[in-house]
Amino acid sequence: MIDVQNQPDTRKIKIRQAGVSRFRLPLLISDDGKIQPVTAEINFTVSLSEKFRGTHMSRLTEILTERVSKPLSIPEVENILNEALQKLDTDFAAIKIDFKFFVKRTSPVSGLVSYPDIDCEFSGELHKENRMNFSLTLKVPFTSLCPCSKEISDFGAHNQRSLCGVKLTFKDPDKLNKIKIDEIAGLIENCGSGQIYPLLKREDEKFVTEKAYNNPKFVEDILRDAVLAVRKIENLSAFEIECENFESIHNHNAFAAYGEKLFTDDAEN
Amino acid sequence: MIDVQNQPDTRKIKIRQAGVSRFRLPLLISDDGKIQPVTAEINFTVSLSEKFRGTHMSRLTEILTERVSKPLSIPEVENILNEALQKLDTDFAAIKIDFKFFVKRTSPVSGLVSYPDIDCEFSGELHKENRMNFSLTLKVPFTSLCPCSKEISDFGAHNQRSLCGVKLTFKDPDKLNKIKIDEIAGLIENCGSGQIYPLLKREDEKFVTEKAYNNPKFVEDILRDAVLAVRKIENLSAFEIECENFESIHNHNAFAAYGEKLFTDDAEN
Amino acid sequence: MIDVQNQPDTRKIKIRQAGVSRFRLPLLISDDGKIQPVTAEINFTVSLSEKFRGTHMSRLTEILTERVSKPLSIPEVENILNEALQKLDTDFAAIKIDFKFFVKRTSPVSGLVSYPDIDCEFSGELHKENRMNFSLTLKVPFTSLCPCSKEISDFGAHNQRSLCGVKLTFKDPDKLNKIKIDEIAGLIENCGSGQIYPLLKREDEKFVTEKAYNNPKFVEDILRDAVLAVRKIENLSAFEIECENFESIHNHNAFAAYGEKLFTDDAEN
Amino acid sequence: MIDVQNQPDTRKIKIRQAGVSRFRLPLLISDDGKIQPVTAEINFTVSLSEKFRGTHMSRLTEILTERVSKPLSIPEVENILNEALQKLDTDFAAIKIDFKFFVKRTSPVSGLVSYPDIDCEFSGELHKENRMNFSLTLKVPFTSLCPCSKEISDFGAHNQRSLCGVKLTFKDPDKLNKIKIDEIAGLIENCGSGQIYPLLKREDEKFVTEKAYNNPKFVEDILRDAVLAVRKIENLSAFEIECENFESIHNHNAFAAYGEKLFTDDAEN
Repeated sequence: MIDVQNQPDTRKIKIRQAGVSRFRLPLLISDDGKIQPVTAEINFTVSLSEKFRGTHMSRLTEILTERVSKPLSIPEVENILNEALQKLDTDFAAIKIDFKFFVKRTSPVSGLVSYPDIDCEFSGELHKENRMNFSLTLKVPFTSLCPCSKEISDFGAHNQRSLCGVKLTFKDPDKLNKIKIDEIAGLIENCGSGQIYPLLKREDEKFVTEKAYNNPKFVEDILRDAVLAVRKIENLSAFEIECENFESIHNHNAFAAYGEKLFTDDAEN
Repeated sequence: MIDVQNQPDTRKIKIRQAGVSRFRLPLLISDDGKIQPVTAEINFTVSLSEKFRGTHMSRLTEILTERVSKPLSIPEVENILNEALQKLDTDFAAIKIDFKFFVKRTSPVSGLVSYPDIDCEFSGELHKENRMNFSLTLKVPFTSLCPCSKEISDFGAHNQRSLCGVKLTFKDPDKLNKIKIDEIAGLIENCGSGQIYPLLKREDEKFVTEKAYNNPKFVEDILRDAVLAVRKIENLSAFEIECENFESIHNHNAFAAYGEKLFTDDAEN
Repeated sequence: MIDVQNQPDTRKIKIRQAGVSRFRLPLLISDDGKIQPVTAEINFTVSLSEKFRGTHMSRLTEILTERVSKPLSIPEVENILNEALQKLDTDFAAIKIDFKFFVKRTSPVSGLVSYPDIDCEFSGELHKENRMNFSLTLKVPFTSLCPCSKEISDFGAHNQRSLCGVKLTFKDPDKLNKIKIDEIAGLIENCGSGQIYPLLKREDEKFVTEKAYNNPKFVEDILRDAVLAVRKIENLSAFEIECENFESIHNHNAFAAYGEKLFTDDAEN
Repeated sequence: MIDVQNQPDTRKIKIRQAGVSRFRLPLLISDDGKIQPVTAEINFTVSLSEKFRGTHMSRLTEILTERVSKPLSIPEVENILNEALQKLDTDFAAIKIDFKFFVKRTSPVSGLVSYPDIDCEFSGELHKENRMNFSLTLKVPFTSLCPCSKEISDFGAHNQRSLCGVKLTFKDPDKLNKIKIDEIAGLIENCGSGQIYPLLKREDEKFVTEKAYNNPKFVEDILRDAVLAVRKIENLSAFEIECENFESIHNHNAFAAYGEKLFTDDAEN
């Protein structure tokens, strides 16, 4: 059977990324020694030489399908990319693996356990004969309470759900096994006016209401506190943070964004 | 050219709805004497006799395309459905037209004008030799403030953006020209703890913060107040209401729903 | 601490559904003797008497949270609803549990195994002192190839991905343990022009291309074949089917819908 | 009334972007001498000095609200950004304006006119005392037909809807008035196996079916042809292209991406 993908191409254009997107797969994510089953959505691509017409995409889905029911840790993502480099005989591979990750939280007064979910993305890029460049993205929900509204009002203050997205790029690929999703999510949660919980009893609700009122923060405050928190994470080479407050007094959002390359003189912000 | 759609079918199944979905079109909505251009997404279907294999869908998109740049009032929806009955020689036609509708609002203290958007749906159904059955659905955003949180906390109270969806089904098709989208949206907005505005100055923000604090409402309170408000709308035969609070202390929502058939003894709720 | 929810209400409106929506939870779905971990999104509500102001929503999230890491079969949904009736002292409870469910499929020629996902919803409603009314909704993807396009064209025929949603309502609650999600998904897949697979080698691609060309179907054909297939499922009291073709020659979809109450004289279609 | 936003900040973090997101507004887009009403969703931000605690976001929504019912051409976006720099006394402003833009197309045989929609984004960035950096993003739908499937199959070939997103960044801000959205969309449409149309009669359907069969293209072919087409657009400084085929034989997509900085020696691809 003819291999149409292998036909020569004359357009002289090397493609950086060709592959599959929105590929869904059940995976077992390994984080901090614990295994969590997730429903993943995956984009998986390789570079395509200017010499050939097409990529052999079924090899990519084959590599992914073999991962079903085997634990997947972050360092293991590099092996997936190496497998793609070899099986597709190419010089660059990239993967994004998106899933909801559940963390365990305890309500502040009654001590009830519940499991909020965090949107999580593993993003790996690998150039041939190099090591993987890995980024972890988390989108962490919490409460924000407006300092202006509190200050100018005789009572009350508008507050709302917020979402803070952090994209962390790591330096040393040999230390990726030290990343703890749950712990990083906890760092970010603490940058809002208060944490959110799926399960709160009345004594907890009193606590979180008063805590948020005592801890008013603009979206800019949250962003800056997240910058300070993220800078303390080990082994980072760069990070980006976006924060969005789903304003209760508007039908639009308040938004703030920041990016930083670490250990360089010309940090872009 | 052979008409495959017209081939006889032996499966003896009459289809209630066959047609097009997610068809997008620029329309000019006529409401209360004013014309508003909108970007509409449309589902448009007709029944298909058990005798034939398929519907002639291009006639449906043709009917819709002819409506571009002509004002579309609610009563005019019946004409679209009648055109479908005739051009497709069938006995039932249905249409759903979804769009964002902008209303004009004035901030409570500074008097600044801005334009919040309301998700709006026109839904019409027409049986041959009958009149159109028409429903209007609006999804109206506002603020809600939790009465429990206010009561049990020494200061503050959690609040959030809420969305109230009302589906109103009307009785007399000859009175559909009296429906005013903007006015109905206003009725629903008033059922929350406070209205939302795209544009607020500080004096307005103080006002809306304090108003919401003075007007705490559970999602159930909002729903019940919306039921009372909707019952006063003229010419209704039935309605459904759903209200969702995007809880600031959780990452899930509080939800309440209610349905009522009017002018009957066995009102379903 | 005062129980604001328990305050008397004077509006005389009984609410059919009050509770939580978009509550996400990791669950272990039990189907046909096998356990599958899923990421669920849940709406869980109870009726609220006209006498009281609000529902105690944290009891609902508590009931759900206790289900983490325990297998959940369809009959078990009735126990969740009964727990809600008791813990909230009310007369009606409803739940919708949505998740992606992976099925195992083997490519037609090379025999490679892969795991397409099906959107799945468990929907249960329980009136006090009654048995649960249960519906299963599946949204199954496959290929459709247009009979008209094939017939009128000298070569080729437009085809596309399609999605068929079936909502099945069951009669006897004691037979719910016999439902097999995977098997029902298979029935529906066979109603298109061809099945889809996440993993296909060239010999498989030839097979599925030719099979679809030999099996052209309008969205109306697919719907009718799905009606015939669904009618054979045991223990049904009613069903609804919607089918949507993501037309490759348009940027809108072709759509068809059908509903049937079984074992009645006036089947609505 | 105290200006909390103006409070000094000690965290020494300059924020690149603070403002509003998902702000919806009815706008009148001016393209190639014609005015088109659209429903826009807008992100509008400014930089915030490390000296101050917060941005005055209501000034941003005020600037936007004043644009209602006035024609908005691409060069006019620079005026909006300049207004933000002045009214917020800052050194950087950015805006993204997203809307569905309808183009006029004529079916290939019957000559019927219809209006497919293109997702469109205006993206402007302005540093103080500089000129605007402007990018136009279009997401253009069309048909793709698989060359491999055609070649290896005795008859037929799988085909599907595709979407090609191009982000074009322009060089000379004085030539932005020459951009024609409709024309660029047309360039991209021609890179697929065939165009799509909202309205096709049978003779048109035969034409587009046969044309696609005669013009098979991988997602990589489409991407490369789009690269060649885009390189001919005047006044570009850089571009990115992403193409996605909604595979009819899979429930995932085929994907390819390319980026290029023009007029440099080390074009990144």
